[in-house]
Amino acid sequence: MTSSNTQKIQLDHGSGGSASHQLITNLFLPTFDNPYLRQMDDSAQLTIGDNRIAFSTDTFVVSPIFFPGGDIGDLAINGTVNDIAMSGAKPLYLSVGMIIEEGFSIHSLNRILKSMKKAAQIADVQVVTGDTKVMPSKKLDGIAINTAGIGVIESDYQISANRAQVGDRIIVSGTIADHGITILTQRDNLMIEGDIQSDTASLNHLVSKLISACPDIHVLRDPTRGGITAVLNEIANQSGVEIEIQEDAVPIKPQIAACCELLGLDPFSIANEGKLISFVPESSVKQALSVMHQHKLAQKASLIGTVVSDTKSVVYVKTPIGGKRLLHMPVGDQLPRIC
Amino acid sequence: MTSSNTQKIQLDHGSGGSASHQLITNLFLPTFDNPYLRQMDDSAQLTIGDNRIAFSTDTFVVSPIFFPGGDIGDLAINGTVNDIAMSGAKPLYLSVGMIIEEGFSIHSLNRILKSMKKAAQIADVQVVTGDTKVMPSKKLDGIAINTAGIGVIESDYQISANRAQVGDRIIVSGTIADHGITILTQRDNLMIEGDIQSDTASLNHLVSKLISACPDIHVLRDPTRGGITAVLNEIANQSGVEIEIQEDAVPIKPQIAACCELLGLDPFSIANEGKLISFVPESSVKQALSVMHQHKLAQKASLIGTVVSDTKSVVYVKTPIGGKRLLHMPVGDQLPRIC
Repeated sequence: MTSSNTQKIQLDHGSGGSASHQLITNLFLPTFDNPYLRQMDDSAQLTIGDNRIAFSTDTFVVSPIFFPGGDIGDLAINGTVNDIAMSGAKPLYLSVGMIIEEGFSIHSLNRILKSMKKAAQIADVQVVTGDTKVMPSKKLDGIAINTAGIGVIESDYQISANRAQVGDRIIVSGTIADHGITILTQRDNLMIEGDIQSDTASLNHLVSKLISACPDIHVLRDPTRGGITAVLNEIANQSGVEIEIQEDAVPIKPQIAACCELLGLDPFSIANEGKLISFVPESSVKQALSVMHQHKLAQKASLIGTVVSDTKSVVYVKTPIGGKRLLHMPVGDQLPRIC
Repeated sequence: MTSSNTQKIQLDHGSGGSASHQLITNLFLPTFDNPYLRQMDDSAQLTIGDNRIAFSTDTFVVSPIFFPGGDIGDLAINGTVNDIAMSGAKPLYLSVGMIIEEGFSIHSLNRILKSMKKAAQIADVQVVTGDTKVMPSKKLDGIAINTAGIGVIESDYQISANRAQVGDRIIVSGTIADHGITILTQRDNLMIEGDIQSDTASLNHLVSKLISACPDIHVLRDPTRGGITAVLNEIANQSGVEIEIQEDAVPIKPQIAACCELLGLDPFSIANEGKLISFVPESSVKQALSVMHQHKLAQKASLIGTVVSDTKSVVYVKTPIGGKRLLHMPVGDQLPRIC
């Protein structure tokens, strides 16, 4: 990307896929270049006094704002809680920055706030500071919520997307694509049979149990925008490793798989909001799966792949019939305003 | 405010005045109630390990995004740096959460990023984590930027809006209303003679010098939305004190005063983005003014008033001809999207 006068921001730049990645690596990173940002994890890992801190931010513009399984409020709390937790940190404090459109219903705002409160209670974090701006009617579609958050990394865990190693086994904590498909079916008023709802949830308590039991976990990431495809490609790039995923090992609900097939969408590239991907040494796999299966948010946790070499940065998918295809970083945005 | 189904968010709810205050005290505070939030300062003061931390957030939706003296980029950096500095903290790390409208010029984005970089360098803070969302065309007017930030309170300063005491002298660090009037004249294409530009600036280095020289400062606040009127009323309420301001002691540029008169605006209620109000014991006034006058951002620092009693929470203005009027919290929003 050059910064020519004629270039415009496109929806793809917010997709979490390759256009987002380009925007970040060509504009944001060179501008603010520093070692924290260069780490490219879900949160920055900082040192303040003797404490290791994780600091993260995320903005939520999901449409519709209320959907089966959640709303923009709990999504905003859980999203930042999860970004912090993925560094092995215990999330403690959140900020909330709201932009609200003039004319927005105070009843809806109250419903969103109640949902944020409940999510914060479940995650055991406190909202300690905030800001609210109002935009004139038609200058913003409804409401946008930014959350930023601070967590403490209590042990000497070194969990980062650049620590994947040959031999690491890859675990996903449950079924994929639930959140993205829920939003899509809501938006288009598709009448889908069966239970389809967002998986929005805070993963910090699960992570806490997981890293206590398996302190040698190398990577944790939550596959939100761009789905597991984006996250696996980012990890492959940052760690310089070759990843192999068993296609039929990846858990997906039949009704979600059916939707994806119907709509021509790749579930691997669809957003999740309550799942994590973990890279674990072979020796800890059994223990990690056991901890996850005992937790209500990870009962479908499955071993889905392996880091097979460190000769190139690439992700392959092995199909049930023995084929092998490249899993490219998603290019465009299949679903704008998914979170 | 009740949460009836029919009530709507109005522009006033984002004004920084009494409607904003109502929204916060009736909806946000009861929802997320905790001691940090109840403090109602510009930043939350937290303890992590042995460290005292200040944590703050602010969202910027200013229109136009480029204006004399600055743009939405440096405004977003300086705004959060200042909110952190007002607790006596040294700002260290910022997050940046952007929402950009599809079709937004990448050239303009680059210009904004460069401006953020420069502001961060001047304030000596690092942008360590970020997030970018793209909204479809016409769902957002241009760009909105959230910044959150962390600072460290290095000494045992106790600076808070609830610490104003009888006898405290009130200092403003320079001329008022520059930012708000600049935005207004830009927006309405008013052709005003003379140098009118935003005062956007990071105040952390000034604060650092000030609190080193006068560690007994009781209150620091930056009078942004709602101007010095809103800030003085907040301090009067939080500290339970009566404040008296000398109207003709408040510094204002003649061209800004002329604009306000022409447009029927009260400069006391107009936003500033590079000024602070400080409540200082009488014994430290001389020293505080001396430090400020030596700093390029506070050469017009002036003594403007006194805390006269703790019998009621109220702000009076004494006029040059000996009159005395109540300075009420601003009710409506004179200028939406001012920051």
